[in-house]
Amino acid sequence: MRILILGGDGYLGWPTAMHFSLRGGQVAVLDNFSKRMWELEEGVKPLVSVPTLHKRVKRWYQVTNKKIELFVGDLCNHRFIYNVIKEFSPDVVIHYGEQPSAPYSMQSRDKAVYTQYNNVVGNLNLMFAIRKFCPDVHLIKLGTMGEYGTPNIDIEEGWLEVNHNGRMDKVLYPKKPHSFYHLSKVHDSHNIEFACRVWGMRATDLNQGCVYGIKTNETDLDPLFNTSFHYDDIFGTVLNRFLVQAATGEPLTVYGGGTQIRGFLNIRDTIKCVEISVDNPAERGDFRVFNQFTEQFSIMQLAKKVISVAHSLGIDSSISHLKNPRVEQEEHYYNAKHSKLENLGLDPNLLTEKELKEMFLLVKKNTQDVDTDFFLPRVKWTQ
Amino acid sequence: MRILILGGDGYLGWPTAMHFSLRGGQVAVLDNFSKRMWELEEGVKPLVSVPTLHKRVKRWYQVTNKKIELFVGDLCNHRFIYNVIKEFSPDVVIHYGEQPSAPYSMQSRDKAVYTQYNNVVGNLNLMFAIRKFCPDVHLIKLGTMGEYGTPNIDIEEGWLEVNHNGRMDKVLYPKKPHSFYHLSKVHDSHNIEFACRVWGMRATDLNQGCVYGIKTNETDLDPLFNTSFHYDDIFGTVLNRFLVQAATGEPLTVYGGGTQIRGFLNIRDTIKCVEISVDNPAERGDFRVFNQFTEQFSIMQLAKKVISVAHSLGIDSSISHLKNPRVEQEEHYYNAKHSKLENLGLDPNLLTEKELKEMFLLVKKNTQDVDTDFFLPRVKWTQ
Repeated sequence: MRILILGGDGYLGWPTAMHFSLRGGQVAVLDNFSKRMWELEEGVKPLVSVPTLHKRVKRWYQVTNKKIELFVGDLCNHRFIYNVIKEFSPDVVIHYGEQPSAPYSMQSRDKAVYTQYNNVVGNLNLMFAIRKFCPDVHLIKLGTMGEYGTPNIDIEEGWLEVNHNGRMDKVLYPKKPHSFYHLSKVHDSHNIEFACRVWGMRATDLNQGCVYGIKTNETDLDPLFNTSFHYDDIFGTVLNRFLVQAATGEPLTVYGGGTQIRGFLNIRDTIKCVEISVDNPAERGDFRVFNQFTEQFSIMQLAKKVISVAHSLGIDSSISHLKNPRVEQEEHYYNAKHSKLENLGLDPNLLTEKELKEMFLLVKKNTQDVDTDFFLPRVKWTQ
Repeated sequence: MRILILGGDGYLGWPTAMHFSLRGGQVAVLDNFSKRMWELEEGVKPLVSVPTLHKRVKRWYQVTNKKIELFVGDLCNHRFIYNVIKEFSPDVVIHYGEQPSAPYSMQSRDKAVYTQYNNVVGNLNLMFAIRKFCPDVHLIKLGTMGEYGTPNIDIEEGWLEVNHNGRMDKVLYPKKPHSFYHLSKVHDSHNIEFACRVWGMRATDLNQGCVYGIKTNETDLDPLFNTSFHYDDIFGTVLNRFLVQAATGEPLTVYGGGTQIRGFLNIRDTIKCVEISVDNPAERGDFRVFNQFTEQFSIMQLAKKVISVAHSLGIDSSISHLKNPRVEQEEHYYNAKHSKLENLGLDPNLLTEKELKEMFLLVKKNTQDVDTDFFLPRVKWTQ
């Protein structure tokens, strides 16, 4: 099986590439390294530095005797992605290659427009490349649970059966996304659904929760195989920030009341979910959506878990509530369905104390590299 | 009241500008004339040539002693629209300034990407300009009934009350648009809803049906004030094409069975609907949606109306069914609500025999300029 991974330099792209390479697929990664450029723009970096993709691919071959092909270029350049799709001729394309940060997109007009241009046009170019050269490709596209927002009804997996005035239809689940970034993913989903309906494309849209963890079976094979860990205000996740704050004796910064509820999953489960999607492809013409997370927590629940783990290791932490820089509902109903992947065989790795302790100790080992300037939110949703 | 009309050179933009100018507003029009460039690209033109906007604005002043200000530039250049919004400081912005053709957007990757880039980025730049300089502006944005597609349930006006698993929410009406053009409008609607929800913008999204007619109270004031009439496969509407085909003795070309149902309205009602929206502005933070059409017909019903009017004037016509170049449902439920504008005072001008006869005679007067090469669809939804 030939698998092309877009955004192969990223937090999830690289571990995914290693996993499919080891299990015996012909794997190629593609990246333009724009994420590393955005880190420079923002003045942030991951806690532990990540080797270049060239270096990792070379080391991968030395360690496993398996080749991961590397394509360097920009999806917004359609000639580039046309050539890659034609040359590599994938069976599956796993598309992580987008600007992934809500705060990044909310900084300014420039960043909002850039995010929507980069993500939407890159994805359109990919769709047209698949249509032209490999129409049978299964496109596995990373979306986000943040596309749904916080509706007052159960969140279903992509589609909703509606009874209205005595008639029934199955419709795309209506969305109220949280940011211009999340909006770009909503636009992508609409464009892909259209391509499935009209061109007969096959696609799986994975609406993913917040991913934590940096260890997979393959990252453990060599020190050069580690993936990124961001704890800053732009690319970091809330759990990573809490871990770093606790490890450095700083208060955990909670936005607003911390009663916001979100979905979470382990990076091992991200890879398993993608693998399940690869092994159970969507039918031609099918726009299939899975909600990809395993547990939902409020931000305060997360903070308390981190404080408890730190305490068990002899470190006392506190919570500091900040005025919420985002515009989001703090008190809200949240019941998002996530049974489809479990029905196909996902056996979740939950956020246990053991898991948290492992992450905490890894952070603790690197506290000398922590930049506490990264903790406070610089981007506000309203001025 | 200061009213800025984007796309002021267009079929609807110019008549709208004249109307608000005559009723006493300070009116400005903005255009980059890209529609005229797209006509050149496609090798098509309106049945009767349309004077330059400069000429029409000058003549307008001679005839009415009222000034319409003219801004020439591209919404995708944010510096331009920032300067215009700052300088003109409108109370209302009426946004017709987008690529308006489904077949245009379906020609190629290039045109699909261009359409989404042009429409989505232009609209984002406008939103940020309003936020920065005139946050109280009422944005009146033209959308289309084609955003909804043909769901199996009643089409409501923008929002849908959903009861699901015993809970209730009011959600954005789920959409299955017909083309990359229609998708661009869906993306716009999501972006604008976000700006209303998060920034407190005020907006009215007018999901308009297919507009017919070229006469308004103001177009009648001078021969230079006429607006465009397209009957070609790219920018023409189905009713215009039928009228021109009947007037030239050619068969009326119906795509597929012609059982597709769509909403229609008179250009006089477009102007009235926009006026009602201006006079009853959305509240700050409100993303208000009106469905802007007055009647729904199947394509075959339209064809038969045109044949009947032609017959009454001594011309016999026939129907030729073409293989449908589009991918669309032909047999479908269609019941789209459109009461909100009528509740605010719209008194519809329906598609009467008199109305059709008037249009037919106008076409008949210009048959020497008809290019029958424009009749057949060149763009297919699938290759």
